[in-house]
Amino acid sequence: MYYIGVDIGGMSIKCGLVTQDGKIIGKKSASTPVGDYRLALELIAELCKKTAEVSDVNWTEIAGIGAGIPGTVHDGTVSFASNLNWYGVPFDRTLEQLTDKRVVSGNDANCALLAEWRFGNAKGSQNAGLITIGTGIGTAFIVEGKLLLGNMSAGTEGGHMIIKSGGRPCNCGLRGCWEAYASTTALLEATNREIELNPTGVIAAVAKERDMVDGKTLFFALRQCDSRARAILDDYLEDVAAGLINLVNLLRPEIVLIGGGVSNEEEYLIKPLERLVNEKVYGGEFNPFVSIKKASFGNAAGIIGAACLLM
Amino acid sequence: MYYIGVDIGGMSIKCGLVTQDGKIIGKKSASTPVGDYRLALELIAELCKKTAEVSDVNWTEIAGIGAGIPGTVHDGTVSFASNLNWYGVPFDRTLEQLTDKRVVSGNDANCALLAEWRFGNAKGSQNAGLITIGTGIGTAFIVEGKLLLGNMSAGTEGGHMIIKSGGRPCNCGLRGCWEAYASTTALLEATNREIELNPTGVIAAVAKERDMVDGKTLFFALRQCDSRARAILDDYLEDVAAGLINLVNLLRPEIVLIGGGVSNEEEYLIKPLERLVNEKVYGGEFNPFVSIKKASFGNAAGIIGAACLLM
Repeated sequence: MYYIGVDIGGMSIKCGLVTQDGKIIGKKSASTPVGDYRLALELIAELCKKTAEVSDVNWTEIAGIGAGIPGTVHDGTVSFASNLNWYGVPFDRTLEQLTDKRVVSGNDANCALLAEWRFGNAKGSQNAGLITIGTGIGTAFIVEGKLLLGNMSAGTEGGHMIIKSGGRPCNCGLRGCWEAYASTTALLEATNREIELNPTGVIAAVAKERDMVDGKTLFFALRQCDSRARAILDDYLEDVAAGLINLVNLLRPEIVLIGGGVSNEEEYLIKPLERLVNEKVYGGEFNPFVSIKKASFGNAAGIIGAACLLM
Repeated sequence: MYYIGVDIGGMSIKCGLVTQDGKIIGKKSASTPVGDYRLALELIAELCKKTAEVSDVNWTEIAGIGAGIPGTVHDGTVSFASNLNWYGVPFDRTLEQLTDKRVVSGNDANCALLAEWRFGNAKGSQNAGLITIGTGIGTAFIVEGKLLLGNMSAGTEGGHMIIKSGGRPCNCGLRGCWEAYASTTALLEATNREIELNPTGVIAAVAKERDMVDGKTLFFALRQCDSRARAILDDYLEDVAAGLINLVNLLRPEIVLIGGGVSNEEEYLIKPLERLVNEKVYGGEFNPFVSIKKASFGNAAGIIGAACLLM
C-alpha cells in the first residue's frame, strides 16, 4: 500500500505519494486558494488524485491521506490556522467525503518530527524534538515514543516561550518570545542593522557582491573571518541556546533536530549549539548528553510526515 | 493494604502511613543524617517500621514503601541529589534489602503532583502541572495521564527556564532563570529592597510590627492598600506569569496547581495569575482555558505522593 501526504501552507499545497519506507515517488502542488475552506479541500482532493496518477499508482492502492496543517488540529478538526484563516474546519470528515479515503490530519511541525522519528535522524529515540527555524520558530516533541500534544492538541508552541521578558515585541502580541530572537527573521534583522551601521564592512561587501541580504549573508562573512559577523553570530547562538536550554530542562530529549535553512551551517550553528546547550543545561555532567543534529528531510519532511500520521 | 510514603529533604526525613484513599494515619520524622547514604537508608528503614507501629498497623499489611527524593531518580537509582550529596545511589535495591518490602522512588516534585492528581485538585485531568514556589521553583507535569520524565527521568526542571536571558544570576550558574524571579526568595529580596529604600513606608511598618520579614510581609501591606506593595506584586506576578505562559504554551495542561506558602494568597496571586496566563498564552481565545488553582495538600503532598508511586 501507499500513502498520500499533504503539506498545507499559507502559500502552497504540496501533495506527495509516499511508500511505506518513507520515499516520495510522485508529487503535485498548487497555490493555496483564498476564501472558503471548501475550495481548498476540493483542490486537495483533486491534487491527491493527480498525485496518484503521476506516480503511476492505482487509486485503490492508496491506504489513506495524511495532512499537515499550520495550526492547531484536534480530532480531525482544525481549531485554528491563522495563516489559512481556518477556524473550526471539519477537515478529516470533509476530505474523506471528497476522496472516499481515510484521512488523518495533524499539526505541520508535529508531522515533520514524525518523519524524522520514523525515517530520519531521530529514528530509534524515545524522546526527541524538532525545532524549525524560519520566519518564526516551530517546535515539536516526542515524549516516550508519543507526540506531545497537550489539552485539545494545543501544545508545543515553543517559539512563543518568553526568553527575554519585556524584550522585543513578537508578532503574537507579547514581548521577548524566543522567535523574536532566534528566528531567521531575527538573524536577518541583525544582519541588516550591521550593514546600515557599517556600510563599508565585510557583511555589507558580501551583501553587495551577492546583490541580496538573506539568511546566508552572515555566514559568508564568517567564512572571511569577519569579527563583526562573529559577534552577531555569538549573540544569535546565545539566544537560540536559551530556548533550547529551556526545552531540554523541561522535556529532556535524547536528541533535538534543527530544521530550516540555517541548519545547513553545521560548523557555525549546530556544533556550537550542541556544546552550549550541554554546558548550560541543568544538572550538567550528572544528566545525560543531548545530541543536537540537523534535520534530515528539509522541505520533504512535511509530505513524508503527513503520510506518517497514517502509519 | 497500606503504603508508607517517605518524603526525603535536605533537612529532614518524614514518613507517613498512607491508606488506599490517600489519608495519612500515622507519621514519624527525623533529621536527615549527613554522610554516607547508607546511614540515611538505615534510618529510613527504622522510621518506616516505627511509622507502622505508631499507626497500629501490622508490618505484614504494608504493601510497599514509596520515596520522594529531591533530585533525579531513574529506575530505582538516584542519579544525583545535590542537597543530599547523593550521586548514583542504588536507593530502591538497598532499602528493599533493609525492609523486605517493595520500594519505588521518584523525584519529590513528581510525587507531589501524583498526590494532587490522584486525590487532590488535579484529580480527573489528563494534562496537569504543579509548580511549587519556595526557596526555588519545582515543576512537575502529567501529560496524557502519565508523568513527564524525559530521558533518564531528568526532565521538568522548569525553575531553570531562562525567562530573562542575561538577567539575574541563579544558583545554577546561569542568568535569568525563572526561579531567580518567581521564587519566594525573589519576592523576599524585593520586599527587603523596598524596606531599605523606604524605611518609613507601609511595608517597613508591617515588618517592624511583625518583627520579621517573610513571604507574607508584602501581602499584609497589600491588605492596607499600599501602592508600593502593589507595584512589587505586579512585577512579581508578571515574572511568575512569564514562566507559566512558557509551560502552558509548551505542554498545554488543563490545570496548573500552585504550591508553596504564597499559594495561600488566592486573591492576590492565584486569581490574577489565572487571568494573566489565559490572556497572554498563545492562540488566546482559540485555545482551551487553563485553570490555575492552589495545590490541595501543602506539606503532606510529599508523603501522600511518595505512597502514590506504589498505587
